[in-house]
Amino acid sequence: MASNRGIQIGSAWFQRKLNLRPQHRGVHLVTEEILKQVPELSQFAVGLCHIQIMHTSASLALNESWDPDVRDDMEMMLNKIVPEGLPYRHSCEGPDDMPAHVKACFLGSSLTIPITDGKLNLGTWQGVWLCEHRNHAGSRKVVVTLSVRKGGGSRPPTRSPTRDHPPRALGGPRNSRVKKRL
Amino acid sequence: MASNRGIQIGSAWFQRKLNLRPQHRGVHLVTEEILKQVPELSQFAVGLCHIQIMHTSASLALNESWDPDVRDDMEMMLNKIVPEGLPYRHSCEGPDDMPAHVKACFLGSSLTIPITDGKLNLGTWQGVWLCEHRNHAGSRKVVVTLSVRKGGGSRPPTRSPTRDHPPRALGGPRNSRVKKRL
Amino acid sequence: MASNRGIQIGSAWFQRKLNLRPQHRGVHLVTEEILKQVPELSQFAVGLCHIQIMHTSASLALNESWDPDVRDDMEMMLNKIVPEGLPYRHSCEGPDDMPAHVKACFLGSSLTIPITDGKLNLGTWQGVWLCEHRNHAGSRKVVVTLSVRKGGGSRPPTRSPTRDHPPRALGGPRNSRVKKRL
Repeated sequence: MASNRGIQIGSAWFQRKLNLRPQHRGVHLVTEEILKQVPELSQFAVGLCHIQIMHTSASLALNESWDPDVRDDMEMMLNKIVPEGLPYRHSCEGPDDMPAHVKACFLGSSLTIPITDGKLNLGTWQGVWLCEHRNHAGSRKVVVTLSVRKGGGSRPPTRSPTRDHPPRALGGPRNSRVKKRL
Repeated sequence: MASNRGIQIGSAWFQRKLNLRPQHRGVHLVTEEILKQVPELSQFAVGLCHIQIMHTSASLALNESWDPDVRDDMEMMLNKIVPEGLPYRHSCEGPDDMPAHVKACFLGSSLTIPITDGKLNLGTWQGVWLCEHRNHAGSRKVVVTLSVRKGGGSRPPTRSPTRDHPPRALGGPRNSRVKKRL
Repeated sequence: MASNRGIQIGSAWFQRKLNLRPQHRGVHLVTEEILKQVPELSQFAVGLCHIQIMHTSASLALNESWDPDVRDDMEMMLNKIVPEGLPYRHSCEGPDDMPAHVKACFLGSSLTIPITDGKLNLGTWQGVWLCEHRNHAGSRKVVVTLSVRKGGGSRPPTRSPTRDHPPRALGGPRNSRVKKRL
């Protein structure tokens, strides 16, 4: 574990602009879609992965990766807290325009995630969400910046780096997971 | 583009404390005010720019840089979602005091923005917002930390690094911009 | 002050996984609980401290460290803005389950804080909050990543690095502080 390695000298940088495929309005799990476009991440034993969305009407969040109901409920709450139909002055692109900006401000346009042993160091149930606030959006651009320790020390990943496709299909009904205190 | 440069070795640090001029309650575009106090940024080909506001009743966000109506609508929504006049226990400084803390928590006190080719790598319509939640605030302190690749490789900036003053005055009425899917 | 040191070459990394002790639902000041588990921080003159909570139903924020009423009011507002009892689809763990995910998304799961002279560079009244959104949560895991300048230059800290226990007991009634424009 990184906690036993002490202070490690030296740094390196990597930066890449990605496109995320168009999504309908709502909350979408995109951990794997991002990671498969940054295979270089597996080379680094420790560091930080910064992900910036280059738009003002979509956002990034880090939350539940297992139950898609969480993402649907989040979309429901975004619409409840930031409703359409208020007397917005900025309405040139339709009723979903200004609410999208407000939602994007509350959720944020970037994530910074620790890298450990060549993988994003996420909690058991954490995944990266693309929150699409527009009704008819195109592809979304993202800039990924890796600030990492240079040099060896990483082990090759021996399992899938994320759990975008958790083994729910392998057994048991939906919501059968014991998920206390996540 | 940085995405073609591969992994780049070596790092450097730069840190400076800035003052942002006092603003009335509301949302303000401060990209240029910050950047002109950190000219060193233009030296670095790749890195991250971290901006921290040193206060608990103002916040930073990254959103629309073009239409000031968006900023006015955001202030309206902040006041709607976090209203004054609720039974707050912390009210020693007036009705705007506790709502300011709540708003600041939701929007956040720092931004981390990628640096590419000596400039903040922002989307076409993105700019840095100072969100002033107090009625009568003074100057706000900000600490800017640059974590960057050392050494050459950056091109001198050939255009204004931000769009705080987009060419709206150059033609067409307000809101004439085609801004689909930003 | 760091702002007079110019560009500083060289970087180092440190990463540690911590446990924060179980807390009741609400907002809790944990600056000292985190810092005492990362004494290595005092060695570094400049850098960034990234703190990631490894859960999806608790969050981190940076806000008022002095008056506990602010934290109680924040908990009150979280429950008002994201109430229980709505028609959530994800409700397998009880009425506090889905609201916890929404609150965590709005507040965020990580903080990035500048390091200056071996200490977190926080504003006078800023402290790290653990926001516990579940009724019955256990210990919460946190990954702390230090991205710092290597080498000397830090001064040994000459005072407590944070103000989790500000000198309120030393004089005056609660709320006697002059706290204008923080």
